[in-house]
Amino acid sequence: MKKLNVALIGQGFMGRAHCNAYRQVNHFFETPFDLQLKVICGRNRPGLEKMAVTWGWEEISTDWRSVIGRGDIDVIDVATPNWLHAEMAIAAAAAGKIVLCEKPLAVSLVQARQMVDAVRGEPNMVWFNYRRVPAIAFTRRLIEEGRIGQVFHYRATYLQEWGNDPTRPPGWKLQKSEAGSGVLGDLLSHLIDTALYLNGPIDEVSAMMHTFSPGRDVDDATLLLARFANGSIGSFEATRYAVGCRNRNAFEIHGSKGMARFDLEDLNRLEFFDAADARNLQGARRLLVTGPDQPYSTNFWKPGHIIGYEHTFIAALGDFLGSLESREPFHPNFEDGLAVEQVLAAVETSAKQNGVFTAV
Amino acid sequence: MKKLNVALIGQGFMGRAHCNAYRQVNHFFETPFDLQLKVICGRNRPGLEKMAVTWGWEEISTDWRSVIGRGDIDVIDVATPNWLHAEMAIAAAAAGKIVLCEKPLAVSLVQARQMVDAVRGEPNMVWFNYRRVPAIAFTRRLIEEGRIGQVFHYRATYLQEWGNDPTRPPGWKLQKSEAGSGVLGDLLSHLIDTALYLNGPIDEVSAMMHTFSPGRDVDDATLLLARFANGSIGSFEATRYAVGCRNRNAFEIHGSKGMARFDLEDLNRLEFFDAADARNLQGARRLLVTGPDQPYSTNFWKPGHIIGYEHTFIAALGDFLGSLESREPFHPNFEDGLAVEQVLAAVETSAKQNGVFTAV
Amino acid sequence: MKKLNVALIGQGFMGRAHCNAYRQVNHFFETPFDLQLKVICGRNRPGLEKMAVTWGWEEISTDWRSVIGRGDIDVIDVATPNWLHAEMAIAAAAAGKIVLCEKPLAVSLVQARQMVDAVRGEPNMVWFNYRRVPAIAFTRRLIEEGRIGQVFHYRATYLQEWGNDPTRPPGWKLQKSEAGSGVLGDLLSHLIDTALYLNGPIDEVSAMMHTFSPGRDVDDATLLLARFANGSIGSFEATRYAVGCRNRNAFEIHGSKGMARFDLEDLNRLEFFDAADARNLQGARRLLVTGPDQPYSTNFWKPGHIIGYEHTFIAALGDFLGSLESREPFHPNFEDGLAVEQVLAAVETSAKQNGVFTAV
Amino acid sequence: MKKLNVALIGQGFMGRAHCNAYRQVNHFFETPFDLQLKVICGRNRPGLEKMAVTWGWEEISTDWRSVIGRGDIDVIDVATPNWLHAEMAIAAAAAGKIVLCEKPLAVSLVQARQMVDAVRGEPNMVWFNYRRVPAIAFTRRLIEEGRIGQVFHYRATYLQEWGNDPTRPPGWKLQKSEAGSGVLGDLLSHLIDTALYLNGPIDEVSAMMHTFSPGRDVDDATLLLARFANGSIGSFEATRYAVGCRNRNAFEIHGSKGMARFDLEDLNRLEFFDAADARNLQGARRLLVTGPDQPYSTNFWKPGHIIGYEHTFIAALGDFLGSLESREPFHPNFEDGLAVEQVLAAVETSAKQNGVFTAV
Repeated sequence: MKKLNVALIGQGFMGRAHCNAYRQVNHFFETPFDLQLKVICGRNRPGLEKMAVTWGWEEISTDWRSVIGRGDIDVIDVATPNWLHAEMAIAAAAAGKIVLCEKPLAVSLVQARQMVDAVRGEPNMVWFNYRRVPAIAFTRRLIEEGRIGQVFHYRATYLQEWGNDPTRPPGWKLQKSEAGSGVLGDLLSHLIDTALYLNGPIDEVSAMMHTFSPGRDVDDATLLLARFANGSIGSFEATRYAVGCRNRNAFEIHGSKGMARFDLEDLNRLEFFDAADARNLQGARRLLVTGPDQPYSTNFWKPGHIIGYEHTFIAALGDFLGSLESREPFHPNFEDGLAVEQVLAAVETSAKQNGVFTAV
Repeated sequence: MKKLNVALIGQGFMGRAHCNAYRQVNHFFETPFDLQLKVICGRNRPGLEKMAVTWGWEEISTDWRSVIGRGDIDVIDVATPNWLHAEMAIAAAAAGKIVLCEKPLAVSLVQARQMVDAVRGEPNMVWFNYRRVPAIAFTRRLIEEGRIGQVFHYRATYLQEWGNDPTRPPGWKLQKSEAGSGVLGDLLSHLIDTALYLNGPIDEVSAMMHTFSPGRDVDDATLLLARFANGSIGSFEATRYAVGCRNRNAFEIHGSKGMARFDLEDLNRLEFFDAADARNLQGARRLLVTGPDQPYSTNFWKPGHIIGYEHTFIAALGDFLGSLESREPFHPNFEDGLAVEQVLAAVETSAKQNGVFTAV
Repeated sequence: MKKLNVALIGQGFMGRAHCNAYRQVNHFFETPFDLQLKVICGRNRPGLEKMAVTWGWEEISTDWRSVIGRGDIDVIDVATPNWLHAEMAIAAAAAGKIVLCEKPLAVSLVQARQMVDAVRGEPNMVWFNYRRVPAIAFTRRLIEEGRIGQVFHYRATYLQEWGNDPTRPPGWKLQKSEAGSGVLGDLLSHLIDTALYLNGPIDEVSAMMHTFSPGRDVDDATLLLARFANGSIGSFEATRYAVGCRNRNAFEIHGSKGMARFDLEDLNRLEFFDAADARNLQGARRLLVTGPDQPYSTNFWKPGHIIGYEHTFIAALGDFLGSLESREPFHPNFEDGLAVEQVLAAVETSAKQNGVFTAV
Repeated sequence: MKKLNVALIGQGFMGRAHCNAYRQVNHFFETPFDLQLKVICGRNRPGLEKMAVTWGWEEISTDWRSVIGRGDIDVIDVATPNWLHAEMAIAAAAAGKIVLCEKPLAVSLVQARQMVDAVRGEPNMVWFNYRRVPAIAFTRRLIEEGRIGQVFHYRATYLQEWGNDPTRPPGWKLQKSEAGSGVLGDLLSHLIDTALYLNGPIDEVSAMMHTFSPGRDVDDATLLLARFANGSIGSFEATRYAVGCRNRNAFEIHGSKGMARFDLEDLNRLEFFDAADARNLQGARRLLVTGPDQPYSTNFWKPGHIIGYEHTFIAALGDFLGSLESREPFHPNFEDGLAVEQVLAAVETSAKQNGVFTAV
């Protein structure tokens, strides 16, 4: 096995999810790489020390530039607040590193384009981990096999409720200066990446962004209607004010031959309706997507034994390491991250237009 | 009991639902009226004869004008294709009748206004029957009791699939000349009436109307974003191309104190989330809205014994007859029907604007 | 149409459900009979008067013997507390009437046998209405078509909660002298009739009967294990102490080719699992059993428009009247009611044996 | 941190789940132990070599006795086919090791008692991992807090379908000589352990064991009725012939104050019904048991981010290591495993009695 030296920048919730992926990937995926957890980098030294002990990082650092400058590091993994992604990823690329970056790729379209330019020719990945939910990867396969047919409707929501929780301490996600946006980059970006993955390019959008909390400078909710290049039409809603929903990242696709429905809170399941069934036997089937013959079912446990949130990171990393070896293109990469940013930029533009609404 | 002589114009699916309501209302509601089913009116004489036998109409007629002209008729019930509603209802009102009219009230805003003017001062009703779904009436009560709190989001879909069925014979619902519109009047009107009932006036909308089937002159799908007067934001989708969905008329409301979720395919249930529950005991409750202490539960059967589609018509009629006696205002009346038409008109205006979408 | 003169004995909840069936049957079924609601009979005169007005009975009576003795009555419908069934039904049969009887048929096996003897040669019916739930009738069809295959397991529960409600007034259902038993006759009888209908004869049982409430002389809960003649094994549970369950009459059948699952609280749905589906597309399908090509879907409304509890009585009556005309055998008749009683008797015998349990 | 040297005997599916637990436990639990994965032991050398590489075992061995004899091993973890548990665990205990053993503890009551005797005074654990499903641990807490009240009914099923799969290679689980029993030890043992954990001792049982497949010498299905010491009554069913069910380990508990319902295929959820809610607001709540204030929610991810099957092993190990440090009693230990065996033995005894069934 080849050694691959990793540096992780970021020590928050995402940093922890990445740590777990590095520790677990070779337990479930056969990769040719022996991952060396060289250094974890952040601003909070006591926190870094604790994470280094827990996850086995050899060193800690509070100076990300020096880490990127080290010759013994092969991979830079950026898991910082959004506004730092571009600078770090571009510097890492300039230093010849393999670059992995959390989503959303950037806080502006300009940044995203620069990042794509910077990594050109080198392996790169954006952590839109939900593409590796088995049920979502399986939906893609159903579509490719023609089981959904011509798509008519795509409907997606990402519903969280914590925006309305007054007891919650304000973090960087509620600061435009650090997050770039509210749910737009945080939640809608996931929906858009999944939509592009499953249903192809979006041609045009009509959007509304809304902030419920006085004084907040980011969007609490963003909704849009969309036209896809394949002729289907869509609606999207991302919000932090959906009281009753912890983490409902859901979609429904209606095509000429079938329907697929998914909800991240029930991530091992996919509902599939097959219009080819006899009329009196038609009904949405609840598939428990844990195998057999389903994505990642040979990697993890047995059919009927469910996996969790963290496995999507493990599988993303496993596939990425596989692509390093096979030299086959990996997705989602920075280009995919840019494609999401292009849609988000159009959403913002649309939402700023006053004329978009008609008075009743 | 006082005799009340009824004439029904219409012999289709809705006509049949109304017949059932007339026959059943006094079995479940204590009204002071002895309904006399005098005449059923339509264009297909053999069909009328059959319906007269089945439901016990004294006479049949193929001349609606003469029926309206009869002095022995108290109530005219209009259950014809949409384009005929205005002419019939206005004539009936001019003849001093109590007028009941199927939804949507009219095929244009102008017509709807004329109808409201025509019935002013006389009892009238529009058959937005879903207000009488116990779970929907109960949602209204929850809102009035403050259990939902300040509303943030309102989300509604009416999903059917028959638009994509090539074996289905074309009927008047697919002809703009008779239906006035496609899903706009047929399905979206229901969503809007329910939204106005539960969440109050809509200030502005941004909409998309789409026709999938070449050559069809009505909308197969209509989607919109909305701002309500109470500060909440909403999304609506009505379509006949949602393969996998027979009749999914559904809504979700997220407020500061709770959430309510409904689906007509499961009409005896309401999901209710109470944010006042202890955090670790919070979860959407599946209420079986069949009593006790729930709307209409003393009218029909026992708790746990479910009702069906037809009961919404019975309850609408029961309440209307009750209002005739009590002289209290009845809703939904023609004014409510007009309020729906005003939103639908804004939807059409918005959808016709080219500038509403932003290219990606 | 031929006149058929009906007398109903019983003025409780069941009486009301039967009234509705008489009023509605010709609206949804094409029968050759013009039902005349001649007389409703019971012990509470004011209640009878009210029911006569509501449902249109021509007369009332508090003397059931005289009613049975009348020459102008064709049908006697027994909807009284259980202990009265045998005497009334046998008298009615002796008078040459068509006899309909509520379930359970009797309060003893001896009675049930006498009743079967009494009605021999004449049309008769026992109101095990749940055979006419479209989803249950459809399950029978699936079994007959071989879609379930060789049955391995049959599992049924009838869960109610009111036994534990101290505020509920004690009625005849809690008196052994009137009801004959507790959940055995009230709830388990339904489960057994459905099981015999769907899965054939039961060979042997091992049972437990339990009373939670001190001083009550009927069973609050009855559970049993069973062996069916077809080689499958089963479990049954009926209780009035299942807090959280209003009326959960449910079953699951697992066979070599498929699975079916039903719950009366969701009576328009059937879950069906087809083991012939590709492995990775297998999942329980949620069928909305409202048509097309499903039982009773041409009688009531359109696909996607649900029916309720009362429709099972209408359909039972509709089928019975159809059999009167066609002379084809009708089920469930008194023989079917007796078959249920035979199982219930074995359940009681088993439960009384002390040796049935092994100490841990 | 103190070093703790581990030897694992077993290289099958369970062995793999234990490997993962050893690798993950310190990532999610703060234990004082630095686990050293010294040696993995089994009969298949190539398989052992592969597992050693994947999971980082220092050595492999095909001689379990020599491993137990080593002075540098602190912990022996037995994850072999059932018939070997007793011999290995007793030898390990005799050698003064900390012993962990897969379930069921033994293949006979005699063995189980010997094992309990052997480990007396030393830390020990039986891997009934499902006690650490957060939803199950939370159910226990609900019961302890009095939220379920006096229990009336306990109902549990463990439904799998692979017994009917003719393509499946026969393994040791279908051999009585190696497994000791069929679903009795494999599936029912889980149900019983959970029942004892949640609802206390079982006094007596009445059971049926059944083998569908000709020539098989283990039970394909075992069903029983039970009386608990707390006065509640129960039913249990374990089968490998439940076509349509991958891994449905489910229970329902009805008490005077509430109801709890769980299904392992949806392991992050618990349904909870609170009879103290207002009558018209009562309904089963679907709790997403991922925090806050729920078991293990601070160990793993954030509320709304689900965990999987493997986490139950991690949590069991985390709690066990915690008890090593705190010296507080750990459950489930060998005594708990024996308690399960006592019930299983009574089940077998009951099932062998011919007289248990009454003919219909």
